[in-house]
Amino acid sequence: MTQLAAPLERLIGELAKLPGVGRKTAQRFAFHVLKSPAADVDALIVALRELREQIHPCALCFNLADSETCPICADPRRERTTVCVVENAANLLALERTNAYRGVYHVLGGALSPLKDVGPEDLKVRELVERVKRDGLREVILATSPNVEGEATAVYLARLLKPLNVQTTRLAQGLPAGADLEFTDDVTIQRALENRRDY
Amino acid sequence: MTQLAAPLERLIGELAKLPGVGRKTAQRFAFHVLKSPAADVDALIVALRELREQIHPCALCFNLADSETCPICADPRRERTTVCVVENAANLLALERTNAYRGVYHVLGGALSPLKDVGPEDLKVRELVERVKRDGLREVILATSPNVEGEATAVYLARLLKPLNVQTTRLAQGLPAGADLEFTDDVTIQRALENRRDY
Repeated sequence: MTQLAAPLERLIGELAKLPGVGRKTAQRFAFHVLKSPAADVDALIVALRELREQIHPCALCFNLADSETCPICADPRRERTTVCVVENAANLLALERTNAYRGVYHVLGGALSPLKDVGPEDLKVRELVERVKRDGLREVILATSPNVEGEATAVYLARLLKPLNVQTTRLAQGLPAGADLEFTDDVTIQRALENRRDY
Repeated sequence: MTQLAAPLERLIGELAKLPGVGRKTAQRFAFHVLKSPAADVDALIVALRELREQIHPCALCFNLADSETCPICADPRRERTTVCVVENAANLLALERTNAYRGVYHVLGGALSPLKDVGPEDLKVRELVERVKRDGLREVILATSPNVEGEATAVYLARLLKPLNVQTTRLAQGLPAGADLEFTDDVTIQRALENRRDY
């Protein structure tokens, strides 16, 4: 049986909880930490503690923030009448990476899922409706993921927003850039066909 | 430009220092930490701090220990006249996982490397020689890695130990279990040929 000093064993156990990290990778991380200068380990400890203590939802869009509003809502250059609705902050970041969007966001905190017992009251849906009414938005882009739960959430929100006189759009679906038709799944090809455009 | 709350940005920066972890994986880890219960984050912080504070080299073999000697040296069932010399604790663990070895270890703390300016005085070489003289060892297994630096270290140690009247052995080299000759590198095949056995 592998015999490890108890503190090492404990750290490996904690690191193995990270997503996609098995025992072997956790062990590699732990050995790396052991070899790291004390200042690096301290910096990691401080960063973990500060994350827990300082991060909370943005008062406007529920993105992650360390002051009252998130960096995007606080940015005066962002266009405030277009709101992009995303499931979570990771999806928001994926959109931000493109540099293609200059509006603001609304982070739902998940997608509707009867299986996981997530209903509209578990998401920031009421807050979205209030925002549309209060801020006189011009457009709401439904950017939930193109999977079953994300689609259901988009359909639900589109219906809910219909009476509010705001333009509601959905991210386009089709072939990903650089794709090879041979290796593209059927549903994607089907949607690319359905959404074909004049050329 | 991606705009992240500062504490999140800092944690991602720290996590990206882990081996094999890029910015994207670090971001996934950070989001995971954000979603984790406070108790889990606390456990990780405590584990990191304890690792730094409690782990030190074993007084006998220089393996990682949280008391004076490591769990292996402290185990009365281990056979103390056979010492397996390894470069580091990670390599020791790889050997331990096999459950095939019942002796004790000697952790050098690296391998000889003129390029990286690592000489015998930077490794626990003197301590190994003292151990051989003091403890009347029967066998020293040179289990440094089968690469240039590990081989050089093994050759150096074998010469050094020769006058001390202790049996010195080296881990076998050859084809790894489950290998396909077609995809095995030339050096491995060459060594497998050189070390071929009667069958």
